[in-house]
Amino acid sequence: MIRVGIYGATGYTGLELLKILKRRPDVKLMWLTSENSAGQTLADVFAVPWEDRLIPSEEADLGQVDVAFLALPHGASIPAVKKAYEAGVKVVDLSADFRLHDQAVYEKWYKTTHTAPELLPRAVYGLPELHRSAIREASLVANPGCYPTSVILGLYPLVKYGLLAEPYAIADSKSGVSGAGRKTALMYHFVEANDNFSPYNIGHVHRHVPEMEQELGAVAGQPLTITFSPHLLPVNQGILSTLYVRLKDPLTTDDLNALYRETYAGEPFMHILPPGKLATLRHVVNTNRVAISTTAIDQRGNAIIVACLDNLIKGASGAAVQNMNLMCGIEETAGLL
Amino acid sequence: MIRVGIYGATGYTGLELLKILKRRPDVKLMWLTSENSAGQTLADVFAVPWEDRLIPSEEADLGQVDVAFLALPHGASIPAVKKAYEAGVKVVDLSADFRLHDQAVYEKWYKTTHTAPELLPRAVYGLPELHRSAIREASLVANPGCYPTSVILGLYPLVKYGLLAEPYAIADSKSGVSGAGRKTALMYHFVEANDNFSPYNIGHVHRHVPEMEQELGAVAGQPLTITFSPHLLPVNQGILSTLYVRLKDPLTTDDLNALYRETYAGEPFMHILPPGKLATLRHVVNTNRVAISTTAIDQRGNAIIVACLDNLIKGASGAAVQNMNLMCGIEETAGLL
Amino acid sequence: MIRVGIYGATGYTGLELLKILKRRPDVKLMWLTSENSAGQTLADVFAVPWEDRLIPSEEADLGQVDVAFLALPHGASIPAVKKAYEAGVKVVDLSADFRLHDQAVYEKWYKTTHTAPELLPRAVYGLPELHRSAIREASLVANPGCYPTSVILGLYPLVKYGLLAEPYAIADSKSGVSGAGRKTALMYHFVEANDNFSPYNIGHVHRHVPEMEQELGAVAGQPLTITFSPHLLPVNQGILSTLYVRLKDPLTTDDLNALYRETYAGEPFMHILPPGKLATLRHVVNTNRVAISTTAIDQRGNAIIVACLDNLIKGASGAAVQNMNLMCGIEETAGLL
Amino acid sequence: MIRVGIYGATGYTGLELLKILKRRPDVKLMWLTSENSAGQTLADVFAVPWEDRLIPSEEADLGQVDVAFLALPHGASIPAVKKAYEAGVKVVDLSADFRLHDQAVYEKWYKTTHTAPELLPRAVYGLPELHRSAIREASLVANPGCYPTSVILGLYPLVKYGLLAEPYAIADSKSGVSGAGRKTALMYHFVEANDNFSPYNIGHVHRHVPEMEQELGAVAGQPLTITFSPHLLPVNQGILSTLYVRLKDPLTTDDLNALYRETYAGEPFMHILPPGKLATLRHVVNTNRVAISTTAIDQRGNAIIVACLDNLIKGASGAAVQNMNLMCGIEETAGLL
Repeated sequence: MIRVGIYGATGYTGLELLKILKRRPDVKLMWLTSENSAGQTLADVFAVPWEDRLIPSEEADLGQVDVAFLALPHGASIPAVKKAYEAGVKVVDLSADFRLHDQAVYEKWYKTTHTAPELLPRAVYGLPELHRSAIREASLVANPGCYPTSVILGLYPLVKYGLLAEPYAIADSKSGVSGAGRKTALMYHFVEANDNFSPYNIGHVHRHVPEMEQELGAVAGQPLTITFSPHLLPVNQGILSTLYVRLKDPLTTDDLNALYRETYAGEPFMHILPPGKLATLRHVVNTNRVAISTTAIDQRGNAIIVACLDNLIKGASGAAVQNMNLMCGIEETAGLL
Repeated sequence: MIRVGIYGATGYTGLELLKILKRRPDVKLMWLTSENSAGQTLADVFAVPWEDRLIPSEEADLGQVDVAFLALPHGASIPAVKKAYEAGVKVVDLSADFRLHDQAVYEKWYKTTHTAPELLPRAVYGLPELHRSAIREASLVANPGCYPTSVILGLYPLVKYGLLAEPYAIADSKSGVSGAGRKTALMYHFVEANDNFSPYNIGHVHRHVPEMEQELGAVAGQPLTITFSPHLLPVNQGILSTLYVRLKDPLTTDDLNALYRETYAGEPFMHILPPGKLATLRHVVNTNRVAISTTAIDQRGNAIIVACLDNLIKGASGAAVQNMNLMCGIEETAGLL
Repeated sequence: MIRVGIYGATGYTGLELLKILKRRPDVKLMWLTSENSAGQTLADVFAVPWEDRLIPSEEADLGQVDVAFLALPHGASIPAVKKAYEAGVKVVDLSADFRLHDQAVYEKWYKTTHTAPELLPRAVYGLPELHRSAIREASLVANPGCYPTSVILGLYPLVKYGLLAEPYAIADSKSGVSGAGRKTALMYHFVEANDNFSPYNIGHVHRHVPEMEQELGAVAGQPLTITFSPHLLPVNQGILSTLYVRLKDPLTTDDLNALYRETYAGEPFMHILPPGKLATLRHVVNTNRVAISTTAIDQRGNAIIVACLDNLIKGASGAAVQNMNLMCGIEETAGLL
Repeated sequence: MIRVGIYGATGYTGLELLKILKRRPDVKLMWLTSENSAGQTLADVFAVPWEDRLIPSEEADLGQVDVAFLALPHGASIPAVKKAYEAGVKVVDLSADFRLHDQAVYEKWYKTTHTAPELLPRAVYGLPELHRSAIREASLVANPGCYPTSVILGLYPLVKYGLLAEPYAIADSKSGVSGAGRKTALMYHFVEANDNFSPYNIGHVHRHVPEMEQELGAVAGQPLTITFSPHLLPVNQGILSTLYVRLKDPLTTDDLNALYRETYAGEPFMHILPPGKLATLRHVVNTNRVAISTTAIDQRGNAIIVACLDNLIKGASGAAVQNMNLMCGIEETAGLL
């Protein structure tokens, strides 16, 4: 039995984590914290029949748990991670606070001081498809961002084999509204987002950019730049990234496809679509899968990779459980669809 | 040229009013107020190319206008209506503050003191299909609520001719989210409202109930009770009310239909569907129309009337312009689709 | 290990059934039939990574399976049910063909001859909350319709205890578009259904009416009439029925609520919301739950019951698996969320 | 009074055209054709109160009209255009049949023989922002495709001034479902398209590519290649194209913005957003506007242009009316919002 605690259980990632963990006979939820809803039950906060009571984070007893998930805003996560880590609990942090290895990069993009830089070298970037062995040994896993997971896994085979004409790619990404979290703001009001489609933070300014560049740059062995354009889609869940690359040497769609199939052979959650079929949100929503399609365009090496995932599952809580499974030495796919 | 001012131009009804009035060559917008966005332009506040600057309400010059529209929250509307009325300006108030003739009923349902009760007898309930002549003469028109317009017009022919078995009807109403206004609240967050459908304030507790009962009771010449169940639909605009009645004597669908056609003959915005066709939101959204269908069920007199309208147009801003047209003695349909 | 075959696996109920059964370590899918897609794989037909090949129904080997699910159109189901039943296989029929005990009623509403009337007395109406013991013993279960499940379970406590003032209720029901099946028709085109809301077949003409009246009439011990108004909601999944009743003697909301809690005590999938909270689609979508809220209105006994479920799960495939579990003598909730 | 006939009035572009033209006091609809719905009225075919009767195209009397609009499928349009042109009627063809000047290019992309190539040199590509004078003189206007209008107008200033580093751009476009027309197909079924987002025909294979390349190549004075990725958005109306370019010399966002403002100065329907604001569907839906935002990214000259329009209005029927206005020598903006 894995005893689990969740910090920040009342957001959308918290809800998805609860849905996954409550399906598990081998997981026991010991406590759930919420700053704003402490004292209430899950049934008060979500449309669920669960009567678990939420507690303030200061009442969370780390001695009771084997694993702590943190679904807190960035910045707020640092002291809680530190406390849990020092208590010897396995930590999966869903915030951005431990994803960037370089303190200066973190502080530049997040415009705040990192108050536990000594833990940065201990944190493993929780993308099993790139770092499975390290995750197995880790005590602190920084769960990847939703957009970066789609972009990194979408470009990884090309970068790994050095096929890009220049260390550069364009990611035109579209995300469902749950990616913005469960907080009110006019932009996320139903009437504003429904029947609408909006780019935001486009170019090279979204905070997920350094994460993509860190991971892909490490694979490339050199700095790599991503032009990244997120857009808000009128759906609840799902990210689709359309990735534009230019290859050194043109490949056929079939060859591209074979490359992706080989690179991801044996990966339980990677779904490489056959040539001629394109990945869509429907392939991934409500699952832990990443669906990828590959399309060669012309003799100049232009190609398009489409990579999709559910931002709340493989882009957050499903990945977090996948990481927990690895950290605990059990079947990586347990509880995941 | 009709010179117009709008108090509270930055909500959804304000935007719709602007869209209608800006199509009119015979209307001149003199000023637009906003408490929260004063100093900004319409283009700052909405996705429009209009550079009109918003002013605080205390800067609104009533001397410049022939007509003032008030799209303010209830309560806040009273002093502004009073001031405009006393300045001799024709007033169309889109709030609930002057819809109920009985001060005590207003104060009970709105849980606030009415600070200008002396104006209540001057206010005409702005439903042209019932009160056209009075509106033509009025200086102060209380624009009807969106739900009440659908329920009153849906039941009016039956009540007028005394056909109900008892002074009672059930209104199962469904509204798009813009009906809740342009304010943030978790219930109206895209992720909460999308893929969802929710009843709220059902039974006999929604503030639109006394309005329906006042108007239909007056037609009936006796008190009439409405069981009213509003539901939140995952669409931006539109109300559909499914009205359940029991008739004293059963009618056929054809006879019911003929009754509605006769009652509303000549009405420019009433669209009575032929027997066998049912009214839908698609019949009315983005128009000032009310679509009604009539269905007889059985020999016990059970029947269903479906009445639809666009909550922002015939349920608010379109009706307001229709009222302005009548008050100004011009073509009732001018500028309305 | 339960060996399962599915006739008609390529509709929305088929897909949902596959999703549920593929989560089960104790279920083995032996074959899947499809008339239109035989020869293709599931990945060709749905956005899934599953390579199971579809076969024509005449190749289905009943000797290989313990349980056969039939997700075929009504009429088409009869010969397949008969064959499977006679082969000694446990049958869960998701069509309407065996739901109505009275052949004449079936033939009147479905306008077709029933070609296996001798099986009607063998078929058990598969609503465990009413017929659990009979289902446990059954070889042929007629899985209930989606709308009827919401209406029957929503009214059952009131009918059981004889609380209605007359044997009559109004069901104003709203369903997501998947309820219409995976076939193209202009009414279900995205552009027609999105941003729209449409009543259809209202009054006493929808084929689900006799099913509701049969089951509730049997509980009442007398004929009972339902006015039933279905509406098409712009969502994929979910049914919400707003049920209007008049009680012999008025009850408070608390008393109504207590009655429902007692009636459904111990039921694993019935979620009775506390007084003051209303059931919504969000409570049920992607689960096998039925959420019910109870609201008393006035001293005349008017009351509103709201009953929700996911039309593809508790309204179809989840219920089918619940029935299979009961028929096979295993944990009723196995594999269901 | 302009007397108008419409061939193919029962699709989504036909409906939008009717909505615009019925607002016009100076336009008289003489006849409306439909192959599938001849004999029915508009109220039978759409959710509108209009009783105009549809006629088969062979009954259309060209002698009665000044202008003929053709909203027919490509291929089917050719003989009707020819007949109308030869009858001396001004023709606005909304199909693709006369957009490509080069017969061979047409035949390659549309895989059909062009049966009236002699008219190709007479046809003017109906984008007033590029070809206003020619449209004024034209008897035959080929109304542009919806995607091309967004891409051409989005890139035109950069191409005109020779600012691109190479004659190449990437257009990542997203369109509402009405772009696919009013015909049923599983991909456009509500349940398939809702909550989904799907790329299709990506790379260099969509039929709108040659149109973009023809118009932009002509401006450039050299061949220009577009990588074009259309995606299906879960909304009814609207196209947003995110355009990725590399400039010869980097510009600031302010400079880029100024360039667009100058290029489109005086254009009645071009809405260039100020630096820092991004174009969204909300800026354009239900209007004839094109909204454009400009974003410079880095010192390497990467930049992003976002261009939006309503595919049924500026992308089809609004542009058609704009063209009619020009051809008839009246106010270009008449009847357009």
